[in-house]
Amino acid sequence: MTINRVQLSGQILSVQPIRYTPAGIPVTEASLGHHSEQQEAGLKRQVTCEVSVKALGSLAHQLAAAQTGTCLTATGFLATKSLKSRQLILHLESIEFQET
Amino acid sequence: MTINRVQLSGQILSVQPIRYTPAGIPVTEASLGHHSEQQEAGLKRQVTCEVSVKALGSLAHQLAAAQTGTCLTATGFLATKSLKSRQLILHLESIEFQET
Repeated sequence: MTINRVQLSGQILSVQPIRYTPAGIPVTEASLGHHSEQQEAGLKRQVTCEVSVKALGSLAHQLAAAQTGTCLTATGFLATKSLKSRQLILHLESIEFQET
Repeated sequence: MTINRVQLSGQILSVQPIRYTPAGIPVTEASLGHHSEQQEAGLKRQVTCEVSVKALGSLAHQLAAAQTGTCLTATGFLATKSLKSRQLILHLESIEFQET
């Protein structure tokens, strides 16, 4: 019951400046815009979504250095944004930047 | 830029009755509770989230027949709940029910 795996390609819409946890771990959050065509019940459908993403450690530096508009593929897991918010956020395990 | 792939295991928290689109396609929505331990920046962390899931076609009947508390692994893609809501919903492509 521990499977929690997401792979999502998208374009960086905004990136927040790097900050540090009390334990000194670098953290960056960003917003990723996704658009694609998917199959559902035998029909093609246009899919769009805007996903909040979070990177810690060395990944935080990579994400913080990326420019708005950069295309990438993110891999990670879903979690709630905080104990008080049910909003979903994608915690990044890897980032693959697309060549422009 | 079209990768949008989610695999998530969880427990059904609630299931809505089946309904039909104007085109007669069966649709069911449910809420899936997930809890696991993941690795992030070299540290273990407890992850919980509650994800809205949606199934169309034959999957809608499978999901509608499931009991609250049933454990399953869902595979699908993320989309916004509607044009007016940025809330994320997991559109199901397959459901693997866990033996109880």
